[in-house]
Amino acid sequence: MTVLTTPNDVYTLAQWLAGDHSNWEQAIDNPPFFAHIRVGIRTLPNPISDEGVWLFLEQAYDFELHHPYRTAILNLLYRNERIEMVNYRLKNAEVFFGGSRDRYKLKPLNIEAIDKLEGCTQWVHRTDQLTFKGGVEPGKKCCINRKGVDTYLSIEFEVTETTYSSLDRGYDIVTDELIWGSIAGAFQFTKKASFGDEISIGSIP
Amino acid sequence: MTVLTTPNDVYTLAQWLAGDHSNWEQAIDNPPFFAHIRVGIRTLPNPISDEGVWLFLEQAYDFELHHPYRTAILNLLYRNERIEMVNYRLKNAEVFFGGSRDRYKLKPLNIEAIDKLEGCTQWVHRTDQLTFKGGVEPGKKCCINRKGVDTYLSIEFEVTETTYSSLDRGYDIVTDELIWGSIAGAFQFTKKASFGDEISIGSIP
Repeated sequence: MTVLTTPNDVYTLAQWLAGDHSNWEQAIDNPPFFAHIRVGIRTLPNPISDEGVWLFLEQAYDFELHHPYRTAILNLLYRNERIEMVNYRLKNAEVFFGGSRDRYKLKPLNIEAIDKLEGCTQWVHRTDQLTFKGGVEPGKKCCINRKGVDTYLSIEFEVTETTYSSLDRGYDIVTDELIWGSIAGAFQFTKKASFGDEISIGSIP
Repeated sequence: MTVLTTPNDVYTLAQWLAGDHSNWEQAIDNPPFFAHIRVGIRTLPNPISDEGVWLFLEQAYDFELHHPYRTAILNLLYRNERIEMVNYRLKNAEVFFGGSRDRYKLKPLNIEAIDKLEGCTQWVHRTDQLTFKGGVEPGKKCCINRKGVDTYLSIEFEVTETTYSSLDRGYDIVTDELIWGSIAGAFQFTKKASFGDEISIGSIP
């Protein structure tokens, strides 16, 4: 069931995403198959453009929170009657490590610091009043080389005001075979702290 | 290639196993698909019988080392030209939490404290001078109920003097379908501390 996604949903989704997310409960309930992970998402203090909302994302093992294994810049836009989260990589990610919990570190982040990742935009729809669902755009173009194998990324995620789940998998570009990911299922996060009040339709141009 | 396993190998295997094992390197190399796990194995200060070697095992997420999600008592015996690791459960495991790192806690552990797990003995062979390999005995009798599904346990493990790897999986008792486990592969541990010098053919009756 897809309900109409509206331009204002860009801000609602950004508010729900902005926070410090943890899957601690999931790890405790399923030993030893889920690492304890933290996802920190924060709006940029100096947005790179006037369009939509700009978010910094960092994902880390809880035991080395200050050395995330994944970072990204996401630009949330309303386009084609959906939300499109355009994905950028950071050229020097280390400089911004910890920025989701210390927003001051994100101040110098500008257009020079990032590169757009073609084929890796995520398409998101509001599916009911409580939920957004999304995934990587079609086309199998979001490529990741993992342990020497070229894979294309598949993401299925779901966001509510207090939870966030994500199933990330990599498939062989040639054979479509599942190469990496979890058969134990999606990572299930709950929001431990919210940074949503830093985002409003009024404050974001 | 299976080389002859000798009665003395019971003590060699026990010495190699006795220690504090961590898969930290694996977790760091494969985010986010491996939790950081610690396996502590220690010989009992008061062996439950004169036969072979008795080991206490506890397995925990590193972030809650003092609340292991799995404990076991293993009795290593030489039988049928192999090493058999007979598996016991602890009736009140909590009493012995932390015993692998504080051996004093294991002092009161006696025959009253444990129950034998039928069908869960592990058969181990020396495969070369540097390696033991083992797994659960045939018969699909080592049953584990996980999230409401009855599964039988499959373990494939390999032990050297400094490393220990284990691939634990559960299969549906009726359909043989893989129900739980990691497609990312075996947990790979390295020994961070050895307790092997507490075991010798001389000191163990």
